Amino acid sequence: MPLVLADLLHQWGSPRAGTQLGLKQADVGRTGTAMRLKAAIVLWVLYIFILFLYGFYFHTLLFFKKRFQDVHTMIFIGFGFLMTFLKRYGFSSVAFNFLIAAFAIQWSTLIQGFLHSFHNGKIHVGIESMINADFCSGAILISFGAVLGKTSPVQLLLMTLLEVTLFGINEYILLSLIGAKDAGGSMTIHTFGAYFGLTVSRLLYRPHLNKSRQREGSVYHSDLFAMIGTIYLWLFWPSFNSAVTAHGDDQHRTVLNTYFSLAASTLATFAISSLINGEGKLDMVHIQNAALAGGVVVGTSAEMMLTPFGAMIAGFLAGTISTLGFKFITPILDSKLKIQDTCGVHNLHGLPGVLGALLGALVAGLPLPKGGTLFIPPPVYFPPGGILKMSFLASPPDTQCFEDQIYWEVRLDLGTL
Amino acid sequence: MPLVLADLLHQWGSPRAGTQLGLKQADVGRTGTAMRLKAAIVLWVLYIFILFLYGFYFHTLLFFKKRFQDVHTMIFIGFGFLMTFLKRYGFSSVAFNFLIAAFAIQWSTLIQGFLHSFHNGKIHVGIESMINADFCSGAILISFGAVLGKTSPVQLLLMTLLEVTLFGINEYILLSLIGAKDAGGSMTIHTFGAYFGLTVSRLLYRPHLNKSRQREGSVYHSDLFAMIGTIYLWLFWPSFNSAVTAHGDDQHRTVLNTYFSLAASTLATFAISSLINGEGKLDMVHIQNAALAGGVVVGTSAEMMLTPFGAMIAGFLAGTISTLGFKFITPILDSKLKIQDTCGVHNLHGLPGVLGALLGALVAGLPLPKGGTLFIPPPVYFPPGGILKMSFLASPPDTQCFEDQIYWEVRLDLGTL
Amino acid sequence: MPLVLADLLHQWGSPRAGTQLGLKQADVGRTGTAMRLKAAIVLWVLYIFILFLYGFYFHTLLFFKKRFQDVHTMIFIGFGFLMTFLKRYGFSSVAFNFLIAAFAIQWSTLIQGFLHSFHNGKIHVGIESMINADFCSGAILISFGAVLGKTSPVQLLLMTLLEVTLFGINEYILLSLIGAKDAGGSMTIHTFGAYFGLTVSRLLYRPHLNKSRQREGSVYHSDLFAMIGTIYLWLFWPSFNSAVTAHGDDQHRTVLNTYFSLAASTLATFAISSLINGEGKLDMVHIQNAALAGGVVVGTSAEMMLTPFGAMIAGFLAGTISTLGFKFITPILDSKLKIQDTCGVHNLHGLPGVLGALLGALVAGLPLPKGGTLFIPPPVYFPPGGILKMSFLASPPDTQCFEDQIYWEVRLDLGTL
Repeated sequence: MPLVLADLLHQWGSPRAGTQLGLKQADVGRTGTAMRLKAAIVLWVLYIFILFLYGFYFHTLLFFKKRFQDVHTMIFIGFGFLMTFLKRYGFSSVAFNFLIAAFAIQWSTLIQGFLHSFHNGKIHVGIESMINADFCSGAILISFGAVLGKTSPVQLLLMTLLEVTLFGINEYILLSLIGAKDAGGSMTIHTFGAYFGLTVSRLLYRPHLNKSRQREGSVYHSDLFAMIGTIYLWLFWPSFNSAVTAHGDDQHRTVLNTYFSLAASTLATFAISSLINGEGKLDMVHIQNAALAGGVVVGTSAEMMLTPFGAMIAGFLAGTISTLGFKFITPILDSKLKIQDTCGVHNLHGLPGVLGALLGALVAGLPLPKGGTLFIPPPVYFPPGGILKMSFLASPPDTQCFEDQIYWEVRLDLGTL
Repeated sequence: MPLVLADLLHQWGSPRAGTQLGLKQADVGRTGTAMRLKAAIVLWVLYIFILFLYGFYFHTLLFFKKRFQDVHTMIFIGFGFLMTFLKRYGFSSVAFNFLIAAFAIQWSTLIQGFLHSFHNGKIHVGIESMINADFCSGAILISFGAVLGKTSPVQLLLMTLLEVTLFGINEYILLSLIGAKDAGGSMTIHTFGAYFGLTVSRLLYRPHLNKSRQREGSVYHSDLFAMIGTIYLWLFWPSFNSAVTAHGDDQHRTVLNTYFSLAASTLATFAISSLINGEGKLDMVHIQNAALAGGVVVGTSAEMMLTPFGAMIAGFLAGTISTLGFKFITPILDSKLKIQDTCGVHNLHGLPGVLGALLGALVAGLPLPKGGTLFIPPPVYFPPGGILKMSFLASPPDTQCFEDQIYWEVRLDLGTL
Repeated sequence: MPLVLADLLHQWGSPRAGTQLGLKQADVGRTGTAMRLKAAIVLWVLYIFILFLYGFYFHTLLFFKKRFQDVHTMIFIGFGFLMTFLKRYGFSSVAFNFLIAAFAIQWSTLIQGFLHSFHNGKIHVGIESMINADFCSGAILISFGAVLGKTSPVQLLLMTLLEVTLFGINEYILLSLIGAKDAGGSMTIHTFGAYFGLTVSRLLYRPHLNKSRQREGSVYHSDLFAMIGTIYLWLFWPSFNSAVTAHGDDQHRTVLNTYFSLAASTLATFAISSLINGEGKLDMVHIQNAALAGGVVVGTSAEMMLTPFGAMIAGFLAGTISTLGFKFITPILDSKLKIQDTCGVHNLHGLPGVLGALLGALVAGLPLPKGGTLFIPPPVYFPPGGILKMSFLASPPDTQCFEDQIYWEVRLDLGTL
């Protein structure tokens, strides 16, 4: 099986002919017919297996909480459009986000079901599991941000398959075994997703990525599309952090704290962005990302006695550090540590996630070692991550990164509009 | 009256001078002043009549259900942006969608009020009627998708006037007289809207539409705008299908089933889209539309004992069939049956709607003839549809289809941005 | 302090070097380093002061109403994208909207807290104060629309600082002292915001603005982005007008009345837009704005016994008058009264707001003088507005209005996409 699988995986998402010939579109995928059949079979086989599990194990618990819809919007609109900032990778950004999240919610409902709600041979699903599935998808999409533009859809599906499983285990250890509190996922979602993605990016390091650097930026309208994502994430983050807290006071406190933290990180981002720019100008990359750091940094502590005052200080710090990260840390990760972080997830999710875990420990009045539960070193989970590096997954060549045309029918006739 | 009406309708929406002269903008509408006055009078006369009915017949019932807001968003954002994929018809897509829906909700509140909630000389309106008005608008907008780019605003308003009425009668026959169950509208909304639109498109068949084919495609950013529509439809479809189910268990079951069906149709669409493409690439048209087929196909059955497992199989099949429809059936409809279906509504709403009705019959354990209530042959309703073909409605000439400039002040200076 | 402050404020947002040299980007901000440090200090000093107040005075009241989320979306997505219609000012529109609103909600929570919920030395905050903060932000953003493209971020922050305070005082006088009813803010939000903005625009009158007129229009895609804003405002306006009404019947009545008024103003806008156009075409500017006038005009009266019939007439009139305002009044304001109103807020918020106040008085059966509470002449509040005119705030020169490049890193390589 491995050889056959390797052969057929080889083609999907990144047609060999096309990627070798660069932009000569007429040649792309010329050799592909048989491969395409196999590629679809892979997805179908995988999916039939999942369907089988659904058929045998499901029992539905029925109750509905409003906040689910907000979280759902963040996952599909928020993350999806946030990543459309790349000038020639908009289709892949929003649509692979769609594919990955649609796959992740189904797979994680199973994984988390077996871990948390498996009784009498049945998984019990309901609104709680739908929210948790979205949370897990969030972690996967954070990792997606780190490898954006450098991975084929097959690699992404495989990464999702692995990461959802590890997410479930990590969350189980942190929340169920150690007993940490992390309603908004500073540790389980943001820190985990960011460092998982960065580790994958390190594994897939491309020394010659500069051959695609001309495509790694934005154009005017792509930055506006990305702002749709940013603002939806910003608007619904209070719902995200409070989605699984206890109803009533806990939930309201979480909403208020997150709301003030986000407002503060937005101001901080504007203040620092022009300060660190050579011409005193603002940078859309900072606004799109660091303005959200306030939501990440209170993920653990927002349900605690943080107060709006504390939330604003935390948010202001997070927005500042996140913006500084884009300016000073991302280039170092790339040049020194060989970690190419397309969306800068280390700045939006990694650093603020770690800070959020520490803040949670501080507010909970815990001795730091306990808050230090976050420091289950993420690489512990990654040995299987090496599978993503295997050649038969056909990641795009260094010359074709950040390029929609290798996966999509693109009508690039904007000029003749 | 017919002659006067014909004369004044002749001009609106599609100025004669402009459409004959093609792109010579300076000449567009040169003869229009008097016509414009008349055109506005038509809309005002029509509207004053509606206002009169509102003034005499309304009693408001007051209660509020959250799901209304989600459905409302689908109608105005979802449908509106889904149709912006055309490169030069974005203004008309989103704004005629806005016009038609704003008109349809007012007109259908009256029609459905007379049919369903007319007591003691008053129509009783409230949140239920607002949801039903949005549902009816959905059907009209599906039909709009079939004739997109080939009809003037006057034709569209007239089509809305007719279709809302027939929608009300059809729904009354199916739900009140025959007693069918169809909470998510597989039959009453999707099948009805699709086949009504296809019939209108057949009536308005343009043998020389190839003169405008160069405008029938998308450009890069127009496809991204369309994805805003797709994802909002996808996110809120569970609310759509459950908006008028009984509260509690029925509603939760409907939400869960629709959620899983949509997730499955999304995966299916990605799998099949690259499979059927000559170069193994994905096609945005498929993702934008077929990923939603999972919502349509469980419209009737989602509130029944379908189970997530059944919903996933149904969604996977619907996504597959819908994508295949775009590839293989749409061209045949055009070449053999003379039905030009701009948005492919037959693939997203027609086929999955029929399948959804059959699935509903199957799950309800009904003998098929009863599930066959959907097979009230849609053309039965269309004799009056011929009115749309009358020349005085001034539909755009074959050379000016899919073109915003004949209806809108357009600043096409993107090149100089 | 004034001199130092003047010096450092001088640079931020509008780098002197850049604005003098026009488009020679390489030179922009060459002299800026020291200024940037000072500029950030200003924002920080201001913010630390606010933080201090938060730290000392806050007590949180905890309860949650769903409608807040809808209003929040209107402020950040609705207003933000509505203003992206300008071809080269999209970044500033959506992002300064973001900055101003994030600042305004924090500042107005304080101001309104001191005025309305200060007990035992603590401000009591909760969902009610969050909605009121969004309402206040709405007024600021309306004013922002009047000066869009002609003001630096420093000017905008200063305007926000002043206007939030005056908004609180005005609202206190109208609602608490005079006892007027104005749940949807026809008077307190729309009329106040519009005339405040117009007064600021008059103070900042630019006789040579024609040097930037070539940038004051839209391009094709910028108008589509603006429609995202329009439709979200339209969808959630019923929630806006009903957000602070009493639960139950009052709220439902408000929702229904606003819903019908908006539907009517949409139809009216389409009817009148083509009527007043020289070629019988529609104008996106009208659709984007006047279709919303129905929401403004029932802001005061929607919670009263207006009935859907009355709401539709009011909406239809408001849509008509608003559209006519764009055609006939805006040019006169500019040429005769020296008021340059970029977004036409006088047409969407000013006129319909005044009408709404009169309608409220009419429906409440009040003698007009009482409804006339709105006629606290807005200029009464503006003496301090002159501070915005001071030279050290460095508003952009007449040649660089409506231009993102003076504030943002812009990659204008759309042509090479």
